[in-house]
Amino acid sequence: MSENTHVLLRARPDPAVTADLFEPVAVSVPKIGDGEVLIRVIWLSLDPAMRGWIAEAANYSTPVPLGQPMTGFTVGEVVESRHADYPVGTIVQGRQGWRRFAVSDGSDIDRVVDPSVAPISTALSVLGLNGATAYIGLVEVCDPKPGETVVVTTAAGAVGSMVGQIAKVLGCRAVGIAGGPGKTRACLDEFGFDAAIDYKNTEDLGAALDAACPDGVDCFFDNVGAEQFDRVMERINQSARIAICGTIGMPSFPLPTGPRSNRQLLIKRARMQGFLILDHFDRYDAIILRLSAWYRAGHFRYREDITDGIENAAGALVRLLAGGNTGKALVRVGEDS
Amino acid sequence: MSENTHVLLRARPDPAVTADLFEPVAVSVPKIGDGEVLIRVIWLSLDPAMRGWIAEAANYSTPVPLGQPMTGFTVGEVVESRHADYPVGTIVQGRQGWRRFAVSDGSDIDRVVDPSVAPISTALSVLGLNGATAYIGLVEVCDPKPGETVVVTTAAGAVGSMVGQIAKVLGCRAVGIAGGPGKTRACLDEFGFDAAIDYKNTEDLGAALDAACPDGVDCFFDNVGAEQFDRVMERINQSARIAICGTIGMPSFPLPTGPRSNRQLLIKRARMQGFLILDHFDRYDAIILRLSAWYRAGHFRYREDITDGIENAAGALVRLLAGGNTGKALVRVGEDS
Repeated sequence: MSENTHVLLRARPDPAVTADLFEPVAVSVPKIGDGEVLIRVIWLSLDPAMRGWIAEAANYSTPVPLGQPMTGFTVGEVVESRHADYPVGTIVQGRQGWRRFAVSDGSDIDRVVDPSVAPISTALSVLGLNGATAYIGLVEVCDPKPGETVVVTTAAGAVGSMVGQIAKVLGCRAVGIAGGPGKTRACLDEFGFDAAIDYKNTEDLGAALDAACPDGVDCFFDNVGAEQFDRVMERINQSARIAICGTIGMPSFPLPTGPRSNRQLLIKRARMQGFLILDHFDRYDAIILRLSAWYRAGHFRYREDITDGIENAAGALVRLLAGGNTGKALVRVGEDS
Repeated sequence: MSENTHVLLRARPDPAVTADLFEPVAVSVPKIGDGEVLIRVIWLSLDPAMRGWIAEAANYSTPVPLGQPMTGFTVGEVVESRHADYPVGTIVQGRQGWRRFAVSDGSDIDRVVDPSVAPISTALSVLGLNGATAYIGLVEVCDPKPGETVVVTTAAGAVGSMVGQIAKVLGCRAVGIAGGPGKTRACLDEFGFDAAIDYKNTEDLGAALDAACPDGVDCFFDNVGAEQFDRVMERINQSARIAICGTIGMPSFPLPTGPRSNRQLLIKRARMQGFLILDHFDRYDAIILRLSAWYRAGHFRYREDITDGIENAAGALVRLLAGGNTGKALVRVGEDS
């Protein structure tokens, strides 16, 4: 069997995430024991949250240990099995990390993927964590009503594009903020947003938002923080709901300052809520089922930004964090089965 | 009938609220028409929100017009009546403003007060808007569970002291932040808080909070903003709920800056929500009934900070905004019936 590769985390960001924090190393393909499977990783998801996973600062969970393979969501194929739930040939979406081959006892497998529904890579995007993240943040945190205006940042991204598309399914006006003309064009032409703002080429973001949101902002799904957050917050309507999904426009450390939101939240009787998809894993299968139905109905388009080879994952992550991609950032670790 | 007095708003805060913004003027006692009553005001409530009511900046509603009587919540007695719902002698809690006598068609009467339940001045405090504000913010916005830790700012104040007492009714640990040893003593000895922090005489507010909240902060009812808000936010637990009730520690204008909350809300999956009691007026009677039951069961103590004479209301408001009072700030406009 072909040689295995792990990509190890060697150092922590200081503060930038650079490719040399990671090192690919050749290792042997592990043997499985009873109740275990060997997974050949096919797709690796790159996610903005990875910046937080490798930082020293307190975060959702313990940081990825130095010297260990980087953590990551994956889709792979079971190639050896001593586990009744996962026979050879099963496609699984799990957390096998930055490895070509991984042993699993099932505890780091999130779900079995049905390859007849959609290409299996979608288990890492529209029918995976990105789709479920968009669903939880928009449908459950923001709870938009038909006719309301939904604004989303990083709108051409894997999560943002799904927020816009779900907003349209729900009968809302979808307004996206993205960086660059290619991304705003994707918002309008591919993802069906009603309006898209290129924050990198807009003199006055506030005026652009006023034009795009003539009835104000009812729901705000934010992945960025910082100035984009500030300009949208100035335009929220009474009883607005703000879902905080990410802060990719803010440094992790030190804590940045900005306009205080308290008074605006008070005057508008608005609600701002952080959420993490991992807290909702008990309903993950149900959410994916609902998204799959919408997918089958033709409501979702998606873009993949594919990098070939696990040894190139670090560079692709750096590019993702710099906003250099459109659509879901994926690494093709192995051939599709 | 004795002469009437109106206290007119003459100028807007620039930016401080000073007594000379207001002018008492002698006016005649008005005549009532059909469907109207004449109300003799007995108690006038002073509220921190008045700073916002008189400011030019956009707020919940149109600012109090210059040259008009200042707006305010009142308790009064119906002394003439041509309205079937309010016979002479009825005690009403309404919005008669800074006047000794006011005509009403009932539209600015909030509820009829039963003087057998409690002293009628409580219709402006524990059994009034302050109690209902504490109820909505704590019970409905924060929804605390028994054993959770509730932190409230301006803890010795009319709302804060009710938040602490309701928290105890609900089986929570109640921690108050207040300014000065007299107020923290009132929190502990009168209002039954488990811990109270004197922010004016504490070197390290963060360390004091750590000591007072050994299990972190689950619910935060904030009336202040600014540094107290920042120090509590650093200590919130996962799934914390933050009710934004006021921002008395922050200037209204310009918008002050401070540490951005986005990342902490995200990491802690916390919810921060502004609320305004006026949005919940459809359930006001039901909330007052529930508070009245707790009052009868002996759960509530309260302090009143009484200023005599409507001509002294402006000075008392300035003192309230400077934090110079303990308990509910009231003006005795007339004798109890």
